[in-house]
Amino acid sequence: MVEQKLAVSAADIERAAVRIEGYAVRTPLLENPALNDRAGARILIKPECLQRTGSFKFRGAYNRLAQLSETERGAGVVAWSSGNHAQGVAAAAQLLGMPAAIVMPDDAPAIKADKTRGYGAEVIGYDRYTENREEIGAALAKQRGAVLVPSYDDGDIIAGQGTCGLEIAQQAEALGATLDLLLVCCGGGGLIAGSSVAMAAYSAATRVYSVEPAAFDDHRRSLQSGRRECIAADARSICDALLAPQPGALTFSINRHTLSGGLAVTDEEVKAAMRYAFSTLKLVVEPGGAVALAAVLAGKLDMAGKTVAIVISGGNVDAALFSSIVTGN
Amino acid sequence: MVEQKLAVSAADIERAAVRIEGYAVRTPLLENPALNDRAGARILIKPECLQRTGSFKFRGAYNRLAQLSETERGAGVVAWSSGNHAQGVAAAAQLLGMPAAIVMPDDAPAIKADKTRGYGAEVIGYDRYTENREEIGAALAKQRGAVLVPSYDDGDIIAGQGTCGLEIAQQAEALGATLDLLLVCCGGGGLIAGSSVAMAAYSAATRVYSVEPAAFDDHRRSLQSGRRECIAADARSICDALLAPQPGALTFSINRHTLSGGLAVTDEEVKAAMRYAFSTLKLVVEPGGAVALAAVLAGKLDMAGKTVAIVISGGNVDAALFSSIVTGN
Repeated sequence: MVEQKLAVSAADIERAAVRIEGYAVRTPLLENPALNDRAGARILIKPECLQRTGSFKFRGAYNRLAQLSETERGAGVVAWSSGNHAQGVAAAAQLLGMPAAIVMPDDAPAIKADKTRGYGAEVIGYDRYTENREEIGAALAKQRGAVLVPSYDDGDIIAGQGTCGLEIAQQAEALGATLDLLLVCCGGGGLIAGSSVAMAAYSAATRVYSVEPAAFDDHRRSLQSGRRECIAADARSICDALLAPQPGALTFSINRHTLSGGLAVTDEEVKAAMRYAFSTLKLVVEPGGAVALAAVLAGKLDMAGKTVAIVISGGNVDAALFSSIVTGN
Repeated sequence: MVEQKLAVSAADIERAAVRIEGYAVRTPLLENPALNDRAGARILIKPECLQRTGSFKFRGAYNRLAQLSETERGAGVVAWSSGNHAQGVAAAAQLLGMPAAIVMPDDAPAIKADKTRGYGAEVIGYDRYTENREEIGAALAKQRGAVLVPSYDDGDIIAGQGTCGLEIAQQAEALGATLDLLLVCCGGGGLIAGSSVAMAAYSAATRVYSVEPAAFDDHRRSLQSGRRECIAADARSICDALLAPQPGALTFSINRHTLSGGLAVTDEEVKAAMRYAFSTLKLVVEPGGAVALAAVLAGKLDMAGKTVAIVISGGNVDAALFSSIVTGN
């Protein structure tokens, strides 16, 4: 990679790591012999489903909220989210003693809305396909004098998510493993932007690939074309956490330099990965959290003999949907 | 604890740890902020569902089989098991290149029988309530000249399972945590026998409690009476891994000295723990694997402000049963 001045630096991520220490879980880097055998590769799994709030989103949210001033904390925060950023912001706000209001789509998984309320936040619904969450959120923030917390297109959010990649680099080194590849799910692109910056700094030989639902492959196409491609308004996927309509401006300004390419998986491949995670890894993985595993299982990249890290980004899935998927009904 | 000469020593466990290294997974010691808040205690989770074969049983099986002579390896091994020991023995035999035949109850979870065959073993069925697995296994071993591998009442098996407790002691120390309590599930008593010996040696202030299904509370009653109590022939529990009819002779000779007491949980409490593991811990836990977590959630012991390690011993559960439990149907 040509040396670039990117919007988020490794030093930003190091500072975020200090801020979240003791609040975020340092999730382990897992290895499963059966998965290694099946993939013909050494697969190291970063299970962010084991993170506080059940997804990586707490990392960025806490890093952002911990830097608010006393005055800002009084009026609190507003965010919009399909559910995982919602819980991350709500939990961080609760820990830091500030009010939070979250704009969530009416069709978000019930577990995500319930848990967001469980962290003391106010949940405000909207229709994902007819209303504009950015306008609703902005109006609410203005009305309350609250700080709007973006879910990915923000330097502090990206730096916070980057602590996931930083830990992967540190934990792989502790194992004596040199990572050839890192596969990360991609919605707006915050997790992979931060994590790829961390990789460039601490594991420079590692090639980083985004993984998206096939119907939401905006990063894959954008990496090919060099500009931010959009998703058709009628696109649908089971991966409720990865439905961003195009790459973020800030995240793509990073990802276009740090990523080696983009992969895409079908909803059926995602379901197969969730079943595999249930029966063999013994992890509860939500659809959007399973795309990197799906890419491994479906052989989307030649990884024979390589050492490959994958992020399982979250595990917030309703019991009914999970059951229908793992039983194959 | 009065210093006793027990059938298994800490040195036996240390040697087992060397034997299994690189074959067994060194499972992490997890912590979940939501569980800590709910329990009002610091709960450290040893998730043996993440172990090779999906339960701790691989530890003991590999430790036992790795010590067989070349001649013994040729004729292979025979074991009886409700399913997790079966997979442990089958996987260890496959790694060591020897044949394995496993006697399993006809009503064992399909996932356990299928996976046992998947490790290359021959599976021989029997009726759990009318046939004697010990006689079937002994006859088979004699006929083949094979070595019979007991599921718990064996020094090498106990020492192998004890590596779970050894790792807990080491990992807690690495966290700077002093364990007040360790809660371990208990069927025949091998895992807790080995783990409690490790605790006595490396974390002497830790009190160790067994946790059993209420209908199979033979250890609890045996610890009170001082002799090996039996389970009624008509007892039933959802915890298929914990249905041993009485404590093992060898395991109880250890456990009577090393344990502080026995706890018991109902099947309903086990189901609630499985739901909690699904929705909050994001771990797939089988019924027998959930009893220690159930004891925490149901408040079976005063643990306010304490540091408590619990073992989640396995995650081999059929999708249909798991689904019916997590959806509450």
